[in-house]
Amino acid sequence: MAMPPSTHPRRLLPLFLGLFQGALLLFFALFVTYDEASAQAEDTNLVANQVYRTFPFFQDIQVMLLVGLGLLLTFLPRYGFSALTHNFLLLTFSMQWALVLQGLLHHFHHGQIHLDLHKLLISEFAAVTVLISVGAILGRASPCQLLVMATFEIPSYLASEWVIVTCLGVLDVGGTITIHVFSCYFGLGVSKALFRATQQPLHLKETPTAHSDLMSLVGTLILWVFWPSFVAVLCQPGDAQHRAILNTLLAMSASAITTVVASSLLERDGKLSPGHLQNGSLAGGVAIGVVADMSIPPVAALALGSLSAVVCVLGFRFLTPLLGRKLTLHDQCGIHNLHGLPGILGAAASVVPVLVASKDTSGSHSSQLSPAGGNASEVVGGQWGGGGQALCQAAGLAVAVGASLLAGLLTGAALRLPCLARPPERLCFDDSLYFKIQDQAESPGPDSSAEEGALALKE
Amino acid sequence: MAMPPSTHPRRLLPLFLGLFQGALLLFFALFVTYDEASAQAEDTNLVANQVYRTFPFFQDIQVMLLVGLGLLLTFLPRYGFSALTHNFLLLTFSMQWALVLQGLLHHFHHGQIHLDLHKLLISEFAAVTVLISVGAILGRASPCQLLVMATFEIPSYLASEWVIVTCLGVLDVGGTITIHVFSCYFGLGVSKALFRATQQPLHLKETPTAHSDLMSLVGTLILWVFWPSFVAVLCQPGDAQHRAILNTLLAMSASAITTVVASSLLERDGKLSPGHLQNGSLAGGVAIGVVADMSIPPVAALALGSLSAVVCVLGFRFLTPLLGRKLTLHDQCGIHNLHGLPGILGAAASVVPVLVASKDTSGSHSSQLSPAGGNASEVVGGQWGGGGQALCQAAGLAVAVGASLLAGLLTGAALRLPCLARPPERLCFDDSLYFKIQDQAESPGPDSSAEEGALALKE
Amino acid sequence: MAMPPSTHPRRLLPLFLGLFQGALLLFFALFVTYDEASAQAEDTNLVANQVYRTFPFFQDIQVMLLVGLGLLLTFLPRYGFSALTHNFLLLTFSMQWALVLQGLLHHFHHGQIHLDLHKLLISEFAAVTVLISVGAILGRASPCQLLVMATFEIPSYLASEWVIVTCLGVLDVGGTITIHVFSCYFGLGVSKALFRATQQPLHLKETPTAHSDLMSLVGTLILWVFWPSFVAVLCQPGDAQHRAILNTLLAMSASAITTVVASSLLERDGKLSPGHLQNGSLAGGVAIGVVADMSIPPVAALALGSLSAVVCVLGFRFLTPLLGRKLTLHDQCGIHNLHGLPGILGAAASVVPVLVASKDTSGSHSSQLSPAGGNASEVVGGQWGGGGQALCQAAGLAVAVGASLLAGLLTGAALRLPCLARPPERLCFDDSLYFKIQDQAESPGPDSSAEEGALALKE
Repeated sequence: MAMPPSTHPRRLLPLFLGLFQGALLLFFALFVTYDEASAQAEDTNLVANQVYRTFPFFQDIQVMLLVGLGLLLTFLPRYGFSALTHNFLLLTFSMQWALVLQGLLHHFHHGQIHLDLHKLLISEFAAVTVLISVGAILGRASPCQLLVMATFEIPSYLASEWVIVTCLGVLDVGGTITIHVFSCYFGLGVSKALFRATQQPLHLKETPTAHSDLMSLVGTLILWVFWPSFVAVLCQPGDAQHRAILNTLLAMSASAITTVVASSLLERDGKLSPGHLQNGSLAGGVAIGVVADMSIPPVAALALGSLSAVVCVLGFRFLTPLLGRKLTLHDQCGIHNLHGLPGILGAAASVVPVLVASKDTSGSHSSQLSPAGGNASEVVGGQWGGGGQALCQAAGLAVAVGASLLAGLLTGAALRLPCLARPPERLCFDDSLYFKIQDQAESPGPDSSAEEGALALKE
Repeated sequence: MAMPPSTHPRRLLPLFLGLFQGALLLFFALFVTYDEASAQAEDTNLVANQVYRTFPFFQDIQVMLLVGLGLLLTFLPRYGFSALTHNFLLLTFSMQWALVLQGLLHHFHHGQIHLDLHKLLISEFAAVTVLISVGAILGRASPCQLLVMATFEIPSYLASEWVIVTCLGVLDVGGTITIHVFSCYFGLGVSKALFRATQQPLHLKETPTAHSDLMSLVGTLILWVFWPSFVAVLCQPGDAQHRAILNTLLAMSASAITTVVASSLLERDGKLSPGHLQNGSLAGGVAIGVVADMSIPPVAALALGSLSAVVCVLGFRFLTPLLGRKLTLHDQCGIHNLHGLPGILGAAASVVPVLVASKDTSGSHSSQLSPAGGNASEVVGGQWGGGGQALCQAAGLAVAVGASLLAGLLTGAALRLPCLARPPERLCFDDSLYFKIQDQAESPGPDSSAEEGALALKE
Repeated sequence: MAMPPSTHPRRLLPLFLGLFQGALLLFFALFVTYDEASAQAEDTNLVANQVYRTFPFFQDIQVMLLVGLGLLLTFLPRYGFSALTHNFLLLTFSMQWALVLQGLLHHFHHGQIHLDLHKLLISEFAAVTVLISVGAILGRASPCQLLVMATFEIPSYLASEWVIVTCLGVLDVGGTITIHVFSCYFGLGVSKALFRATQQPLHLKETPTAHSDLMSLVGTLILWVFWPSFVAVLCQPGDAQHRAILNTLLAMSASAITTVVASSLLERDGKLSPGHLQNGSLAGGVAIGVVADMSIPPVAALALGSLSAVVCVLGFRFLTPLLGRKLTLHDQCGIHNLHGLPGILGAAASVVPVLVASKDTSGSHSSQLSPAGGNASEVVGGQWGGGGQALCQAAGLAVAVGASLLAGLLTGAALRLPCLARPPERLCFDDSLYFKIQDQAESPGPDSSAEEGALALKE
């Protein structure tokens, strides 16, 4: 018995997004303006220079997130259109939502929020957390579930980032702790609470094809190229930013080569796994973020990149299956291997330059390890001394893991609400469930329609 | 009976392009030089800075047009290679043709035209009109027809743009009226005159596949990312350019979300249409162009983006089928929905800030609506007062629609010349007609060869 | 009889790369540092400006090489993943290897090498030679063979470049002679020595499909868009760089159009060949590099672009088959047509502005051919007079061809070492030989496993 269309669970999506967009319009009408235009010519020049300096980085990051990350997620051969669209939708939704929340929290002066490119960039950083977390449940969640997840994740991230950066004074210019570690454990928490103890069987449509692996690798390459822009955009202009770019390039080069070594050694026949390449090559970019602008020697960036690729590949090979078996923890894209493990590694590594810098300045001699000499304390000393700063880095990591797991578990529980219409197992990983796209293998058949009807009835 | 190869209609393409390239070489040899090199160091620095400021925007626009728009057009599953190649060929041809015409019209000093990056950029803007108009007849026209269309469209655009911007003083920094509205109605005029009253039946090869829809969506994302560069590149550096970037970002974010809402509500089963997503997400970028650098509040950009997505999706759902039935008007890519309707919406919307700005300056108080205060009149006052300027915007829209329809109809009539060899219906939408590419579904078979022979004979 | 996994030839890859990465870490630990941080604010501003000026160019080149060139190589329908991965791996490997060698040769001061973005860029230029040379043997070589080739090619390139640029004072800002000509003949030398007199039969998996041709064309478009950044990045800021950008744009536009003309005229039925388009459109970029920043009139750039497209297409149509038949010279991607012939053409053309400039300055009047007037001698005079400089350009070309052929032949002979495990003909052009990817057409079957076993035994 078919239900009247208006009560179909797919109806919740336009309702949710429509209400959000309406509320956003109201909020913008009441509170958001642009900066007062500057009358002086020198101010105009200043604004112009800021645009020329920030905008190319901003565009790099947009390409990276929308095209690069979007394509990386198309490794599921019949779910590529959905993956790309959900990634796009979640980015725009989360950016606007983060803009509102950050405006209310930080930039509310005299009843007005002054919008500029820098604030949009900060919102984009917040939105990245959602795009990462989605990887844990990709293909097995409805768009509504993903949007609800984003709704909860953005405020959780803002709170956690405020504690970590503002209260604890953790140094983390590339978002290793605040973004990568946080979003990884948030996503795993969601996955655990959403799927609970049910083992997710291997789905027929889950196995990548040669072509979907190729598209996904193109996504990896785009991410690989633009990652330095992501790490360096918020650095101090000059030496610190220059160093951040170089460190990221070195770490990612080392990751690429080490991934091939590790993947090849781990497989009996020496063939490389596409999944290892697609993820391991990026692991160095995740790990280097937290130390990228510090006075570390180039070899440290190389070593960190190599190590993070090793832990990423080992994670895919051993830890993900283990977590699946022992904890029935489902991690579709392996975000724990790409964001969790390298993030923790980077956070741990950030203790070293902090301690070295504090020794340098107390001993008043410049060491081989910190060529920046006197500057080092400014860069890595933070608001605390060396030892204190090292503790803070550790505390920041603990906060990121703890807060994200807790918030993720709660969010995942909320996603179990029946009205959010999680797709039944049989219809997962298929573009044709949410888009007017022909199922590629076979016509959907009467079974499928019946099941879709049942999905509607369950609501 | 096969014809001798030299008289086959495909021979016209190299003849046409060869003559063009030869004439271009002659023209360049006689008239085109680079600027005299500057002897002073400060001039060198000035040129260097202009290159560093303009070139990243220029590259963004090149990626957007060649890769983004090219991929967007690959939604026809067996016509992707043709769509990409024709887009590429038409861009380079039209840019060079526009360079010649604009040089003759505007930059001819002492028998010489001084070439620089800015003039190439202006030529690229002219070439965009051709790339848009092609969408109306994509897949059903021969390359020669497309080149002849470009040959006529560029001078029509330059004349129309001269009337609208130079004579009427219309403000349109992002080309909403001069480029999008013009090229849309030019394309529709061509389509009407070319196909006349014959209903174009749905072609078997016209239906997108999951994969061609995916590639097309990648194109949309690339366009979405780089659109702000297109709108802002010609703005005044400083606040105006900053505002143009932000307004475009806001409008396009709103478009993306509203498209999902509208598409989902309009379909009985709530599934999203790929075509809506691919086009609707960009509608805000079309509409915002005309007001992007004006002193509008951020909420206006959001609202305009939302509204333009709504009209775009409604256009696809209702207007295009209606125009097809009632006027036998064929619009292959739905350019009326992406460029026509949002363009008109943007032009209409541009009247508001113009009127507000004029009131502000006469009343000499700064209003909530125009945070730029005193600057507003400079930005939106144009060469006329507020009311006069508002009339001008309307007149500009009328000129764009009227001139383009007229020029398009005449051009379309010219495209009916038999020597331009429109492909017969059966061979449309197929790469193998113009490229050495195997037909993907079946071998062409004897029928097809016979029909190709017939095509040759008709000439 | 299956061999124990540890002795399988695929084991050599992780061994080779692992040792390299280890040695690199040691080298970096001992010798590589960043620049001392600058204490002065003005120095910081200087560094910041250099980053803002160089970094967008650097990113353009990264996209061009990793995404553009990578996709261009995916025209082999079942070898796309391998082509993309090998291109990626060879770029990162060769950049690091070039960094080490260049550091030792040129930048070794007081036992330290100071790393900066400029040095990375120079290393990337060196790495490009490897990516080009690979084209000659693509699909028929093992990853180990490619890495050994890179190991030999980088020092050969550095030596040849040192002779050509430093000793002979050849002007070649875009790498036409030093990069394109060198890498082409190096690759052909490798191919000749590797395959010797055995005719390579047409492999079943070699023929592009409609889809692999489409992906490859996307690669061409990305290369086409970003090529001006590659040519102009090392130019003098100001007029010279501006001119280099414009000349490259003009040359490549002319190439695109002329390729269509030439390809269409050469085929009996007038259909365009995808291979011609994918390569010919880029030929102008190869040829223009050597004269891009000189004071040539715009028409010269157009003419050079047209001519190079003609020789490229003629090369594909006639020369490659001829070389295959007469010299049993195998050139998988036609690098001789894209890099060799246009490179020689560009080198020959570079003699003209050099001679004209010398006449100008001696006659002390500015000619139509060199609008830059007095500056011309500085730009094109080099360290020799006009006639001497012209001879040097010719000598540089001779050195590039001779040195690369010699080095390539020796390298190719080394690649015949059995331990490098060249894949047997039957398993060529197939992703599933080195990656855990399902063969797309058929299951590998018992034959294939047997043959892979045989491959292992041969070692």
